[in-house]
Amino acid sequence: MISVVILGAGNVATHLFKAFSKTGQVSVIQWYNRSIDAIKPYKNEVEIIDNLSQLIEADLYILAVSDDTIKSLSSQLPFENRLVVHTSGAAGVYDIDKKHKRGVFYPLQTFSKTASINFADVPICIEALESTDYQLLKKIAKLIGSPTKKVNTDQRKVLHLAAVFVNNFTNQLYRVAHEITESEGAEFDLLKPLILETAKKVQDHSPYMAQTGPAKRNDKKTLKKHLKLLKDQHHTDIYNLLTSSIQRTHGRKKL
Amino acid sequence: MISVVILGAGNVATHLFKAFSKTGQVSVIQWYNRSIDAIKPYKNEVEIIDNLSQLIEADLYILAVSDDTIKSLSSQLPFENRLVVHTSGAAGVYDIDKKHKRGVFYPLQTFSKTASINFADVPICIEALESTDYQLLKKIAKLIGSPTKKVNTDQRKVLHLAAVFVNNFTNQLYRVAHEITESEGAEFDLLKPLILETAKKVQDHSPYMAQTGPAKRNDKKTLKKHLKLLKDQHHTDIYNLLTSSIQRTHGRKKL
Repeated sequence: MISVVILGAGNVATHLFKAFSKTGQVSVIQWYNRSIDAIKPYKNEVEIIDNLSQLIEADLYILAVSDDTIKSLSSQLPFENRLVVHTSGAAGVYDIDKKHKRGVFYPLQTFSKTASINFADVPICIEALESTDYQLLKKIAKLIGSPTKKVNTDQRKVLHLAAVFVNNFTNQLYRVAHEITESEGAEFDLLKPLILETAKKVQDHSPYMAQTGPAKRNDKKTLKKHLKLLKDQHHTDIYNLLTSSIQRTHGRKKL
Repeated sequence: MISVVILGAGNVATHLFKAFSKTGQVSVIQWYNRSIDAIKPYKNEVEIIDNLSQLIEADLYILAVSDDTIKSLSSQLPFENRLVVHTSGAAGVYDIDKKHKRGVFYPLQTFSKTASINFADVPICIEALESTDYQLLKKIAKLIGSPTKKVNTDQRKVLHLAAVFVNNFTNQLYRVAHEITESEGAEFDLLKPLILETAKKVQDHSPYMAQTGPAKRNDKKTLKKHLKLLKDQHHTDIYNLLTSSIQRTHGRKKL
């Protein structure tokens, strides 16, 4: 049995707790949070604490806390030479205090409070300073069903940045589409199958090969028609920039 | 049995032909294309023609051709007062010559040459000038398993425009993510589950509710870190514009 202590009470902490509990081979022996209220619902399943001095020995301590907290929290831990990891995409492995054995256990996925998550769809990016620690982290990821990848800090940081493009920015394009359709009383819902198909297509094809549409074809008539339809300058700016981005990628001239 | 003639040989024409053939209740009795070579592979399944004078009587003629061709092709059809529809998102219903009964049968989805498509995932936007024609088009869509929606020309045009945002522009964000990850030797593949989850999330939540991330939180530290990582001015421009778009939607100040 691998013993784990979770620190933090956000979505990542909660989903990891639930996933570990299901394995039967990873035991969460304590759950710490600065404010105990957030983890009180779990008090019958795990020992909950809000005082670092109560921490007991474990194989692994997971800091599922905000980037800004990693440094100070890790230095306040009342022990040394044990394996401590954070779950951040943007923080360095050396943000963890050097008195510990250090590592990163970064789940590359979007977590929400309510929706349940299948960890088979959550690649875990692992970094560790020592090989035995790496093996332990890999084993734990496998036990919750996640694919794993050895990723150094520079690579993890660009993955975190790229995740903003494919998640936050993509979602904002959905939002703009929502605004555009609503403005004419058309149904955004009609776009949902296309949204899904677009995401499915790049599971098997590169985004380069998957591209279609008027920008790639340099279909000037349609591009003009679209620009005429756009009533919000902000939408027009996005249309122009992403059209020129596509044409840059596919070797067309700018608008 | 509903008799249909398809005109054109692109992806929409081909996928519709295959879908109709499976129904047993819609019979494609002729397939016309200006160049016969493109439809020769189907010569054992349907009468193929390249001369408009050979066209025979049918319940429905589907012009699955480029927007620019609709007007002239529809005027060249050697008959009148029969139901003629086009499949375009951007062309008006009146682009079809007025000697015909006119309509639109616009499948709102991305079609590729190779991948098979399930028409249950293809909403058909229907427009017709006469109610009986609308009913026939609706019936045909149901027979291939598609959901349908009555959509007027203005609504269809904004749906076509919005489709560019959720399909072409989203795919370009995937491409940028590909460029960013590759530049550090990180694997784009690690982002694929996140890409799919992002698309799945808005099937049940509005894009507004689904949004997360540093732009929405106005997490200035992370925004700065990301901007520092971006080496290509073009990527920086996209980052800045979409960050400010998110902050505009969610009531945050601009960067």
